[in-house]
Amino acid sequence: MDDNTTTPVTVLGLGLMGRALAGAFLKAGHPTTVWNRTAGKADRLVAEGARSAPTVGDAVEPGRLAVICVTDYRAVREALGAADVKLDGTTLINLTSGDSGQARETARWAEARGARYLDGAIMAIPSTIGTPDAVILQSGTRSDFDAHASALGALGTVTYLGADHGLASLYDVSGLAMMWSVLNAWLQGTALLRTAGVDAAAYAPFAQQIAAGVATWLPGYAEQIDRGSFPAEVSSLETDVRAMAHLIEESEAAGVGTELPRLIKAMADRAIAAGHGKEQYPVLIEEFGKPGAR
Amino acid sequence: MDDNTTTPVTVLGLGLMGRALAGAFLKAGHPTTVWNRTAGKADRLVAEGARSAPTVGDAVEPGRLAVICVTDYRAVREALGAADVKLDGTTLINLTSGDSGQARETARWAEARGARYLDGAIMAIPSTIGTPDAVILQSGTRSDFDAHASALGALGTVTYLGADHGLASLYDVSGLAMMWSVLNAWLQGTALLRTAGVDAAAYAPFAQQIAAGVATWLPGYAEQIDRGSFPAEVSSLETDVRAMAHLIEESEAAGVGTELPRLIKAMADRAIAAGHGKEQYPVLIEEFGKPGAR
Ligand SMILES: NC(=O)c1ccc[n+]([C@@H]2O[C@H](COP(=O)([O-])OP(=O)(O)OC[C@H]3O[C@@H](n4cnc5c(N)ncnc54)[C@H](OP(=O)(O)O)[C@@H]3O)[C@@H](O)[C@H]2O)c1
Ligand SMILES: NC(=O)c1ccc[n+]([C@@H]2O[C@H](COP(=O)([O-])OP(=O)(O)OC[C@H]3O[C@@H](n4cnc5c(N)ncnc54)[C@H](OP(=O)(O)O)[C@@H]3O)[C@@H](O)[C@H]2O)c1
Repeated sequence: MDDNTTTPVTVLGLGLMGRALAGAFLKAGHPTTVWNRTAGKADRLVAEGARSAPTVGDAVEPGRLAVICVTDYRAVREALGAADVKLDGTTLINLTSGDSGQARETARWAEARGARYLDGAIMAIPSTIGTPDAVILQSGTRSDFDAHASALGALGTVTYLGADHGLASLYDVSGLAMMWSVLNAWLQGTALLRTAGVDAAAYAPFAQQIAAGVATWLPGYAEQIDRGSFPAEVSSLETDVRAMAHLIEESEAAGVGTELPRLIKAMADRAIAAGHGKEQYPVLIEEFGKPGAR
Repeated sequence: MDDNTTTPVTVLGLGLMGRALAGAFLKAGHPTTVWNRTAGKADRLVAEGARSAPTVGDAVEPGRLAVICVTDYRAVREALGAADVKLDGTTLINLTSGDSGQARETARWAEARGARYLDGAIMAIPSTIGTPDAVILQSGTRSDFDAHASALGALGTVTYLGADHGLASLYDVSGLAMMWSVLNAWLQGTALLRTAGVDAAAYAPFAQQIAAGVATWLPGYAEQIDRGSFPAEVSSLETDVRAMAHLIEESEAAGVGTELPRLIKAMADRAIAAGHGKEQYPVLIEEFGKPGAR
């Protein structure tokens, strides 16, 4: 399939996100066919030039790119499982949120029906779709991605992760874990500093600077993990836990929550108990890699 | 006291950090007097031009800036409590690590003896002292800080936080909480992705990008906290917890740890139970501000 903006595309599912996806394809000049289970949601897109298909079977055809974005994977199977749907020769890009197991299973299901299948995750809100701020992750066969990278580029900043269809989900939840962790650490500091009369707005730039600064260490620390060697170049875990104890004490003294500080120290304490006290922080990968206590 | 590089300074305590501080003052051209409890640690600094004082009393004099950096606050009191030490008319800058209570108490103790007192925290390792990478926090009376801001500038990037002597410690532990949280979230993602054969080095740039991106939201989110109003402009907690459940499920399915994912969800679940399900993430400040469960 060629790569210019005249590539025809189909969007299945016109919820908040599906409508944003179809709108971005239209804006980029792609002839766009849309379908939604419930009628009415296509009206505005049709006014903008989309063709509304009465059935999934009508919307999907060989050699055509079809993007599906519905509530969950059950809805994906329901929509694509209709008797009149022929997936043979289509390329299906599933941007529905789900887990890596569902992605791998759906890949096998679609490929057994003759489709090329890419699984994706959208790390963005509908209003940013069509701008570089919309981060869209893709996993599956590289050549299938390459064939449609240009069309997908109409949706945002698209990153190909690898052949395993589960990767988009795994990166997605990992990125969300980072998001909530930055927010939680910021809330912990904000709570502490509010007890000393410091506004959230006064503290935020400092938290921002630390988060962005620490983020720059990650590629270097990753090398320690990949080498499996953790020399204490900057600080040892034994030194770190003393400061972790300070964090807990300050939080207790200020009368704010201590769960996050205690979790931080518990992980480090466990690594020290396992004999890693003289090593550097990334050695905790061994604790994080162990099946969940609790 | 004038602000140029000829300002004489004293450094008390010549451990790893104290030696780095004295070295940076010397390099910037300050006549530098040094003292250490145990002899010998001054030798290299003396070769670089420092004057070694035999006692704290000899090293500290009215109108002179004295920086102290020893193991802990007990050591500060021991060193400065010697009978021959006259603090009257001196400016004392304490860069020893401790908590905000110790800082406030030591401020009262030093001020009762006629000293001007600033408390500080060093968020840096000795090798970066004297470069802009060394983040040094200061709290205490603004005019005392202003009088010595230029001399302190020889040590790194110095930030004044406010009059409360406890602020440097509170920002310090809050910044450390951010540091460990970014590292832990990265380790969680790294552990997950390693189960799918992804190297730590391949994942790290993605984690870095997310951390730095989320960090830019903090000033805007801080305004919600200061206003006490949390409209779900981007996402509601109820939507967030569904993705948090995915994170836990993916971690369980991959056989990696689930403690961090469970803590993330537990905090959000509690805020929802408190009636905030339709509000946006920063509403969790109410949970973080509550005295520690556990
Ligand atoms: N909105 C966001 O900010 C955002 C961000 C990132 C990812 N996502 C993901 O994008 C996906 C869609 O989200 P959304 O915000 O567009 O949700 P939404 O507004 O609730 O829309 C859900 C869509 O799924 C369709 N659907 C549900 N069950 C179906 C079934 N059994 N058969 C056929 N169609 C079915 C609905 O059709 P009807 O109109 O007929 O009900 C509707 O078009 C979700 O997986 C979500 O996690 C959303
Ligand atoms: N090193 C770092 O990376 C780093 C980073 C940030 C903050 N800090 C903080 O900086 C401070 C000093 O750290 P450091 O790395 O320099 O430690 P260090 O190398 O262990 O040196 C400790 C210093 O404290 C002195 N001291 C201890 N007890 C004393 C007492 N009762 N009376 C007088 N002097 C006493 C020691 O004197 P003797 O030589 O006589 O034992 C020595 O000069 C600590 O609070 C530390 O948390 C260090």
